[in-house]
Amino acid sequence: MNIDMIRAAAKRLDGHARKTPFLSSPFLDEIAGRRVLVKAECLQHTGSFKFRGGWSAVSALDETTRSRGVIAFSSGNHAQGVAAAATAHGVPSVIIMPNDAPRLKIENTRALGAEVVLYDRPGGESREAVGAAIAADRGLTLIKPYDEPQVIAGQGTTGLEIAAQAAELGIDQAEVLVCCGGGGLTSGVALALEADAPGMRIRPVEPEGFDDTARSLLSDQIERNDRQSGSLCDAIITPAPGDITFPILKRLCGPGLVVTEKEALQAVAQAFLRLKIVVEPGGAVALAAALFHGDQLDGDTVIAVCTGGNVDPDVFAQALATLE
Amino acid sequence: MNIDMIRAAAKRLDGHARKTPFLSSPFLDEIAGRRVLVKAECLQHTGSFKFRGGWSAVSALDETTRSRGVIAFSSGNHAQGVAAAATAHGVPSVIIMPNDAPRLKIENTRALGAEVVLYDRPGGESREAVGAAIAADRGLTLIKPYDEPQVIAGQGTTGLEIAAQAAELGIDQAEVLVCCGGGGLTSGVALALEADAPGMRIRPVEPEGFDDTARSLLSDQIERNDRQSGSLCDAIITPAPGDITFPILKRLCGPGLVVTEKEALQAVAQAFLRLKIVVEPGGAVALAAALFHGDQLDGDTVIAVCTGGNVDPDVFAQALATLE
Repeated sequence: MNIDMIRAAAKRLDGHARKTPFLSSPFLDEIAGRRVLVKAECLQHTGSFKFRGGWSAVSALDETTRSRGVIAFSSGNHAQGVAAAATAHGVPSVIIMPNDAPRLKIENTRALGAEVVLYDRPGGESREAVGAAIAADRGLTLIKPYDEPQVIAGQGTTGLEIAAQAAELGIDQAEVLVCCGGGGLTSGVALALEADAPGMRIRPVEPEGFDDTARSLLSDQIERNDRQSGSLCDAIITPAPGDITFPILKRLCGPGLVVTEKEALQAVAQAFLRLKIVVEPGGAVALAAALFHGDQLDGDTVIAVCTGGNVDPDVFAQALATLE
Repeated sequence: MNIDMIRAAAKRLDGHARKTPFLSSPFLDEIAGRRVLVKAECLQHTGSFKFRGGWSAVSALDETTRSRGVIAFSSGNHAQGVAAAATAHGVPSVIIMPNDAPRLKIENTRALGAEVVLYDRPGGESREAVGAAIAADRGLTLIKPYDEPQVIAGQGTTGLEIAAQAAELGIDQAEVLVCCGGGGLTSGVALALEADAPGMRIRPVEPEGFDDTARSLLSDQIERNDRQSGSLCDAIITPAPGDITFPILKRLCGPGLVVTEKEALQAVAQAFLRLKIVVEPGGAVALAAALFHGDQLDGDTVIAVCTGGNVDPDVFAQALATLE
């Protein structure tokens, strides 16, 4: 896993992924007590950065392998990213999703051309068993959500853009806050910034109760979450940092940050009010840390990646209610 | 009023206004029955395209005149655009606003550095009388919201970007739908596209009951609205097309389109769901026409400008409720 793979992915993504904008607001700067720049990956195709990894992985396959199709396990955003990328490449995709995933994400994944197979997560069914049988039967290639070099390479293109967009503003020093699940985006961005903006420091951000990465960085070994569901920040809930991602995180990241669910909802509301973007709670934890945990940050500029916007209207309404 | 003024404004805005992205979604294409590209001006500074006109007008003043300050009448978005531009130039601004304008817009305008003076719109007080007295007293320059060449020039920079962004996608033929109040944006975009993308046709879009421009284009003379308030699309409610804007609209625009308030709310909801942007009802009428009035459009591509995103949370919740 290295920077050359990220640059190669950037070439494959060129003209397919969006170069998402940097957004800002004096109102957010005031809350945070420093300059806040938001990388709005919720404006990416399929509503999250996962399209980058999906496209990178699908486009990296040789033609024969790709033509048989791909399979992915996902609570939602990775599913949509892989489905859209596969469909655009004209190949089939099967997505194994938990039957308690947000309705909107299941529907969207189907509409993007994937065959969705649901497994009984609350009932303890093994998604790996369900998926392995289908994959073997059809010769599908598994696209893992984060612990997969070509996926990390795709997510890392976000970091190349951050470095370039910050440089345009004359910024080469900043804390870069990334919403962190299994660490695919965080490790990819870390590698990209190590190469293109070495004055920046990456900080993974997680929701309270699902802070496996923050704890792993502290203990210097992979720690697991007790729970794997039951959070409004469902998009970034994973069991533990990955075997490929964690060594990168360990080498390049500053300490992890942890925000409450309420702070995530407040960040969703601020993004609505001040940036005019729709962010899901899991995609807003980095902004929440920028706004509400400034005491744990250094420097006068913080860059927060808003990673996704696939939120059900009732959860969004809950977030807006925090404004009252 | 000509294209050279728009190009000059683009130079003055460079590095200050955002080049807002083109967004799209296969889900919107499916509703519309053609390709839909959205120019997301809600992501502009201050949450609407009005920042462009405000910056253009303030930056065009000679230094002595500018230093005395500027004044504007506005129900909201123009106010924020002028206030932010004046503050960034280090000069005072006074904004005359109706006392029934959305609370959020009044608060934002103050926070952006303006002195807000409220007049009693429901009670019939003349904003012109209120404003004239203050302007005379302090030597302020009036920045009109649309019937002002430098404002039209600033809004027209949106059109230069549309032409360039469409060309990148290989598109030179399209209907370009613009949310239309007094016609500042619509006429500016029309002039820009006449020069840079002559294969495109501009179509003004208005809410039902406030279709002064559509009726004026039909009758070939300036027609007025009966009402000037009482719409969720408050951002684009004006008495009539302007004396400067209307001749441009007449020469360059196709027939106007009219959407219902409910369609505007549905478009707000679709922009939330599919594009992850926050659009106010008045800023969504062009998208509403693209989605729900395709029978009045030609060609396989429609470009809709989403002009602003300054919407109160309760109105946004009303829009999301249309999804159920």
